[in-house]
Amino acid sequence: MTIAERATTGEWQAAARAVAAELADGVTARDAAGSAPVEEVALLRESGLLGLLVPRDLGGGGRPWSEGLAAVELIARADASAAMLLGYHYLHLWRLTHYDNAELARRAARGTAREGWFWGGASNPRDPGLTLTRDDGAYRVHGRKGFATGAQVADRIVVSGAAPEGGKVMLVVDGRAEGVRHNDDWDAIGVRRSASGSVEFDGVRVPDEWVVGPVPPNEAAAAPYQSLVVPAFQIVFVHLYAGIARGALTAAVEYTRTKTRPWTGSGVESAAEDPYILETYGELASRTAAAEALAGRARAAFDAAVARGRELSAEERGETAVAISTAKVVAQHAVLDVTSRVFEVTGARATARATGLDRFWRDARTHTLHDPVAYKLREIGEHVLTGGLPTPGPYS
Amino acid sequence: MTIAERATTGEWQAAARAVAAELADGVTARDAAGSAPVEEVALLRESGLLGLLVPRDLGGGGRPWSEGLAAVELIARADASAAMLLGYHYLHLWRLTHYDNAELARRAARGTAREGWFWGGASNPRDPGLTLTRDDGAYRVHGRKGFATGAQVADRIVVSGAAPEGGKVMLVVDGRAEGVRHNDDWDAIGVRRSASGSVEFDGVRVPDEWVVGPVPPNEAAAAPYQSLVVPAFQIVFVHLYAGIARGALTAAVEYTRTKTRPWTGSGVESAAEDPYILETYGELASRTAAAEALAGRARAAFDAAVARGRELSAEERGETAVAISTAKVVAQHAVLDVTSRVFEVTGARATARATGLDRFWRDARTHTLHDPVAYKLREIGEHVLTGGLPTPGPYS
Amino acid sequence: MTIAERATTGEWQAAARAVAAELADGVTARDAAGSAPVEEVALLRESGLLGLLVPRDLGGGGRPWSEGLAAVELIARADASAAMLLGYHYLHLWRLTHYDNAELARRAARGTAREGWFWGGASNPRDPGLTLTRDDGAYRVHGRKGFATGAQVADRIVVSGAAPEGGKVMLVVDGRAEGVRHNDDWDAIGVRRSASGSVEFDGVRVPDEWVVGPVPPNEAAAAPYQSLVVPAFQIVFVHLYAGIARGALTAAVEYTRTKTRPWTGSGVESAAEDPYILETYGELASRTAAAEALAGRARAAFDAAVARGRELSAEERGETAVAISTAKVVAQHAVLDVTSRVFEVTGARATARATGLDRFWRDARTHTLHDPVAYKLREIGEHVLTGGLPTPGPYS
Amino acid sequence: MTIAERATTGEWQAAARAVAAELADGVTARDAAGSAPVEEVALLRESGLLGLLVPRDLGGGGRPWSEGLAAVELIARADASAAMLLGYHYLHLWRLTHYDNAELARRAARGTAREGWFWGGASNPRDPGLTLTRDDGAYRVHGRKGFATGAQVADRIVVSGAAPEGGKVMLVVDGRAEGVRHNDDWDAIGVRRSASGSVEFDGVRVPDEWVVGPVPPNEAAAAPYQSLVVPAFQIVFVHLYAGIARGALTAAVEYTRTKTRPWTGSGVESAAEDPYILETYGELASRTAAAEALAGRARAAFDAAVARGRELSAEERGETAVAISTAKVVAQHAVLDVTSRVFEVTGARATARATGLDRFWRDARTHTLHDPVAYKLREIGEHVLTGGLPTPGPYS
Repeated sequence: MTIAERATTGEWQAAARAVAAELADGVTARDAAGSAPVEEVALLRESGLLGLLVPRDLGGGGRPWSEGLAAVELIARADASAAMLLGYHYLHLWRLTHYDNAELARRAARGTAREGWFWGGASNPRDPGLTLTRDDGAYRVHGRKGFATGAQVADRIVVSGAAPEGGKVMLVVDGRAEGVRHNDDWDAIGVRRSASGSVEFDGVRVPDEWVVGPVPPNEAAAAPYQSLVVPAFQIVFVHLYAGIARGALTAAVEYTRTKTRPWTGSGVESAAEDPYILETYGELASRTAAAEALAGRARAAFDAAVARGRELSAEERGETAVAISTAKVVAQHAVLDVTSRVFEVTGARATARATGLDRFWRDARTHTLHDPVAYKLREIGEHVLTGGLPTPGPYS
Repeated sequence: MTIAERATTGEWQAAARAVAAELADGVTARDAAGSAPVEEVALLRESGLLGLLVPRDLGGGGRPWSEGLAAVELIARADASAAMLLGYHYLHLWRLTHYDNAELARRAARGTAREGWFWGGASNPRDPGLTLTRDDGAYRVHGRKGFATGAQVADRIVVSGAAPEGGKVMLVVDGRAEGVRHNDDWDAIGVRRSASGSVEFDGVRVPDEWVVGPVPPNEAAAAPYQSLVVPAFQIVFVHLYAGIARGALTAAVEYTRTKTRPWTGSGVESAAEDPYILETYGELASRTAAAEALAGRARAAFDAAVARGRELSAEERGETAVAISTAKVVAQHAVLDVTSRVFEVTGARATARATGLDRFWRDARTHTLHDPVAYKLREIGEHVLTGGLPTPGPYS
Repeated sequence: MTIAERATTGEWQAAARAVAAELADGVTARDAAGSAPVEEVALLRESGLLGLLVPRDLGGGGRPWSEGLAAVELIARADASAAMLLGYHYLHLWRLTHYDNAELARRAARGTAREGWFWGGASNPRDPGLTLTRDDGAYRVHGRKGFATGAQVADRIVVSGAAPEGGKVMLVVDGRAEGVRHNDDWDAIGVRRSASGSVEFDGVRVPDEWVVGPVPPNEAAAAPYQSLVVPAFQIVFVHLYAGIARGALTAAVEYTRTKTRPWTGSGVESAAEDPYILETYGELASRTAAAEALAGRARAAFDAAVARGRELSAEERGETAVAISTAKVVAQHAVLDVTSRVFEVTGARATARATGLDRFWRDARTHTLHDPVAYKLREIGEHVLTGGLPTPGPYS
Repeated sequence: MTIAERATTGEWQAAARAVAAELADGVTARDAAGSAPVEEVALLRESGLLGLLVPRDLGGGGRPWSEGLAAVELIARADASAAMLLGYHYLHLWRLTHYDNAELARRAARGTAREGWFWGGASNPRDPGLTLTRDDGAYRVHGRKGFATGAQVADRIVVSGAAPEGGKVMLVVDGRAEGVRHNDDWDAIGVRRSASGSVEFDGVRVPDEWVVGPVPPNEAAAAPYQSLVVPAFQIVFVHLYAGIARGALTAAVEYTRTKTRPWTGSGVESAAEDPYILETYGELASRTAAAEALAGRARAAFDAAVARGRELSAEERGETAVAISTAKVVAQHAVLDVTSRVFEVTGARATARATGLDRFWRDARTHTLHDPVAYKLREIGEHVLTGGLPTPGPYS
């Protein structure tokens, strides 16, 4: 089924499920190997999921963000790295539409739908910024960024740098352009196939047609619709965590049913009748369900905010951000608990590396450090206590 | 606005909010006094909320269960005892429709909408059963039941007893009939105005027009739509707990904003800027939101199950029960945590009895003991692990 | 057995146990009544426990602080208010020895051992201070203090006030002196017989023989041995919490064994065989044991610090304070959890007010708000992270 | 310093600290490599720690179990696999003294002290048993055992098997004897250098001088001193967990102090001033301290039980087991929490594999599955509720 032929939510979900099923095969080995997720991106490209959000008149699926997030969640159950790549891809492509350069945004979208461009970014706010020079009628990009998820395997990379004329400018770099160097240095304990290492730009030329435009000097002063990109990142995380939790739970269920032996002295004949294993599954399932329910609420709020477009008010933006943060906090606690405790319902032999059950915790533990949960709790607390809304910033 | 005039969800919610606002006034004093909730029932009657679920053609609001539950939740924020009375009222009236006595069910509904009948029950499964005798062309009811929530202030009481001809029969007792004795002995630490004490029936006469019919000998063997009454009780509890949690949070916010002083050495000028108070509010708000989100999911599932009517399959009944149990487990943990920890964001002076902030914990702690959460976790665990559905029974 | 005849740890513990046993009788009724703990203080006086710390040559028991704390813990199992009174009594009497007025301290100790003086204080740091005037060769005390635990029933009250000659001066007020007014206004949800209401001093005359001396202008600058009084308060709290937790656990055990019925569908014949009740008891007992074990460690550290006397270094004082804070944090979390969850192993009927099982939670919830646990965690965290020690102050 | 020269607790602790310091070097690389812990055992041998428990008259240190456990804890801070090897070594050697073959036990002890024998075992109760045949005046051992911690690198392996004459017999196998095959198949996520894979015995000859004697047919019926070996295993685990928790905390402190950057928007200049990082450290340190305090209590109880020797009563054995289980439950919860949450105080970059901070969680998660914590909670609960003592068995 081509992108154009898929017309319903169900069809897109089926596509995501199919990708998840393919990704499940070999995920333990890929996780062990790390390095560039070439096969994963190829699979995403082939599935048409990269174009899910692209308007139909540009050749895409024309589906709302909520469906993109549902795809991220479904895929995260099988392979969090691939889900992360897909989510970040959506984000980088979408943020282009927030700039006053509609033509470029359309061209980017069309390339995605038609050519299957995969998008990455290089914009970790805690690294020093990139610098731009002007040369031969074009910008050239210089510098290095870490945590550049997806860049290593991206067709197009969104970056911003300090322009010689002052201010920051956003540009789209061709991932295969001369001077782009990927260090293949992402060797963390989790999301090991998320291509989150560093990328270096050694005077990479960007023709003017790929100059997005000036970045607002102060995110807080940016228009609400533009600063919505930060909550957008956060809601992708929510779906990543909900998906990982569900994935771990499902993997554990399979293990307990087929391999776990009843405990000595439990007096039951199968592990699936053990009162404590059942209780623990009840706890894990409840926590996962809470994460999913709040993700659902946040999705609805986010779709509504996106639908408001440039009319989005600061207050609407803030309420949306709080709904997303609330979901994130619950999802984060759930995923860390579930992925660590699944071992308690599977038993000692499930710690064999070949089983791969630890991947879920490693992925969750790694990604949940993106930004400290305590500061999200603080924002939520401020909102409930004083009605205050989060000040837009690189993480809020 | 009369029942007949209220046509929208919003109007019913406004009615519930208005009742909640009235109940908030004096709730601390009523809680201290305990005993029969005469004013509360009068207020509920007057508001028209008692008839919310009654079909429009019988003079009621004709609203779905989800709106009745929303009313319970809104009222629970102010007064858990009154919310409990309303919820149990809906349950007792509604369960009559599950029996093959449509005329009686209609008469009961009409009396509720037109005369403002308030319904109670006396059916605690862990007490010995009532017995019936047959005399002068009517049944007479004998025996005693504890935990008979609402009976003390009820116009009509639903009971069942062992019939002389064998089997159990369900009947509707007039709350003011001769031989009905309320012991006014509910003196628990919480839900002190829920009229949950014992009631005695000393040969109370029930005319045949108020005989509902035979109770299925085995709940498990009952038709799924009929045994849905047990999950229905549980979903009322979910909304009770979500409402109490939100009520406690709101009361704490009011206190912190107006009375809590910044902590010595915190370096901030108001309690509302204290980093730990903000973090704790974030945690309490997140947990409350998780309970509310799962309550919302359970509500939708329950409305759908109710809409299936007598077509409801055992599997649908079971899935609905699991969705409700999942919400209950999360809501129960949330409400116990929130109601105990609100003191940490209000401070030592908030323990004054006059403040009444402990009522929330006492109400939650008391009602959450209705049935052990561990067995609900077990059911949820069984479902996720084996796909098994809860065996219908007095608590499942 | 008189104080003088008690020579061993065991004899003092037996005395504390005997008092606890007497206090257990009627504690629910006294808790309900609130107001002044006249009988409790009489019992403590009669038992000789008031003189436990007083040196033997002054007629006391000459026992170390660790044994006074053990007595507080044992009594807290039965009656937290009485335990609190005893603990605060020890603190007020002991702090006199930190001033350069050995004669007064000896006189106070002798009066305690011989006359059975009970000591209270009025020194809540968050209230405005008292003021002193000088008149007719004596100070006169003016003002009001809240949270004046024990003052209402005290023979002697330790206060400090702003002296007309500048600086603050500490004095001992005769509890029955003219102008001392107790407002009997402690009506909190917990520790209801701790006499923690407000006291007013309306020009109360204090003869010079009861002037302790100048209070150091800055606690932080005070000698370490003198500022040890703040950790001393905290270690009394630790024993209060450990005792309440153990008391709640013991009361629950008695209830479960004698009254709790096996759960419907549990498949067991007594509540004491229910797998989830057993598991929960295991959790509650483990948490209580952790609190007790850390209390034991803190006790040993505190005895050692006290034994150092005026040689105590700032570092030793700080390490002792951290050991105590660590015990407090664990004891506080344990007592709140245990006292709330005991209901889960006793069941719905245990919420009857007559049972009195909620008193433990109310006492714990009230007293644990003395100072925010988050700031204690911060101090512990600072110590483990940087080696920094808490800055001495009114709560550290 | 030779074993003979070490005379004080301090000297033995210094030896353990020295070994820990050496083990810390390269532990991340060894963990990554897995396979046989040859260097670790060499280091333990060289340090003299293998002989710590051996009586002085047999050339050992003559120290009590509490000091062996302290050594396990200290080493676990640096390297849980090595600590586990040392602890199991003590257990296997010690259990020989419980049989009626004092001469063999002495010979084993002497070989340990003088030749530096390292002991392993192959006795996982959940695997099928080994079988013995009788041939040429000696037993021959046949079969396979998994989870044979230490066997792969052991000089002597304690096994038991079904004897041709009936019953089970315990024997000591020379680790280098013909027919002993180590499968080097321990490839779990944690304690990767604990040599916990499988061992096969292909008719391995055991001369009669290394036949320990008949194994009691029923552990429950065994003499209390003999069945104390199960709690002994459990107390080794307690020290393993307490050590891992402390090790993780210490590693995190080092990281936060030297590498963690203050959070964007935290308003502080170093991570060590962040209010939430400090609070979290306070929580982690408190939990670790609780584990250590209960480990200390259990150690004292265990030394006392061991000192009772063959006089140990069933009740004393049971009380000791409960004290150990209580410590284990708390230590297990602490170590899982601490090792997962250290990342929250170090930040995203600490997930780099080269940092090795995940090793602590992997080690804890793996070993804590030895036997289900729920059943330990159940035993503790049974004890507090009914006074019942754990029935001796393979895990109790």
